[in-house]
Amino acid sequence: MGRWGPDARSRLERAAMELYTLHGFEQTTVAEISGRAGLTERTFFRHFADKREVLFRGAGTLQELIVSAVMNAPASESPVQAVVTGLEVAGAYFQGSPERARTRWNIINANPELQARELSKLAALGAAVADGLQQRGVPAAAAGLAAESGVVVFRTAFERWIAGTGEKDWSQLVHESLCELRAVLAAG
Amino acid sequence: MGRWGPDARSRLERAAMELYTLHGFEQTTVAEISGRAGLTERTFFRHFADKREVLFRGAGTLQELIVSAVMNAPASESPVQAVVTGLEVAGAYFQGSPERARTRWNIINANPELQARELSKLAALGAAVADGLQQRGVPAAAAGLAAESGVVVFRTAFERWIAGTGEKDWSQLVHESLCELRAVLAAG
Repeated sequence: MGRWGPDARSRLERAAMELYTLHGFEQTTVAEISGRAGLTERTFFRHFADKREVLFRGAGTLQELIVSAVMNAPASESPVQAVVTGLEVAGAYFQGSPERARTRWNIINANPELQARELSKLAALGAAVADGLQQRGVPAAAAGLAAESGVVVFRTAFERWIAGTGEKDWSQLVHESLCELRAVLAAG
Repeated sequence: MGRWGPDARSRLERAAMELYTLHGFEQTTVAEISGRAGLTERTFFRHFADKREVLFRGAGTLQELIVSAVMNAPASESPVQAVVTGLEVAGAYFQGSPERARTRWNIINANPELQARELSKLAALGAAVADGLQQRGVPAAAAGLAAESGVVVFRTAFERWIAGTGEKDWSQLVHESLCELRAVLAAG
């Protein structure tokens, strides 16, 4: 079952994603999610603060993975290279479960409140990466710009990965997006 | 009085900004805003949908200004140049009232809900600029990346403008931010 393991948390997550897809995030209640998973609401709240958390609980882990990879990138790497090293590591996080990532993406894009939440998470990721770069000795201004570029590359690569057929892997999409961003900025 | 004119809308806006600064956005009620402005709540709701709208009513105008400048930039300008042309025009919108812009900025940064709203507005701006670029014949991928770069430049320049002493004007800060973004991306 991969990431959809038979444990309570995974069953709840799977039930929630199915119901959000079928009926919309707004319309789905915690009672319905728990019922579909064959569990109680009490069990749901032992695993998730609320029904939104089901979709965002991974964001902290993903951010830690990326920031730690940025900070541990070889000292010889430029700020942007270190950021790309961080983004490549992120691929391992969701590349194993493309269907789950695609489902989550569709749910979030159908709801403005969830989209706003996703933007906040991406902004927090950018700020954390900028901090990580500063700890590598990168001046604040360059750290901020490299981190923001990283967020742009991440979003671009992720959208392509979601829309793609699996022909190109995450790392290729990250490099391709960075390459295009560089070309766009270098023009004129 | 500049942008703080004596009309009802301006008095409400001024009263709201003062109260948000003094007591925080959350703690301020529409009744208090109206009272401070010497007007009724009914008048408030004739001008603003809610107390959040006081802070964001200008976002639509600003977006229109930027997108229209992007679309009307000389055909010879590269996507990024057209975006910069758009951002330069934006300066006219807030450069005349730096105190108001600074106050608004401080209010928004003190409240996560308002920050999320600001991020949504910036994402909408990016999407609208990307659309504008596509109407200039720029392919979708390059349009998206140029627009996202524009948002990064806008945020960077705006933060510097807010923090600055007025020594550098908006246009200089936009060019300086773009120049640094290019340098960061070109490295490595």
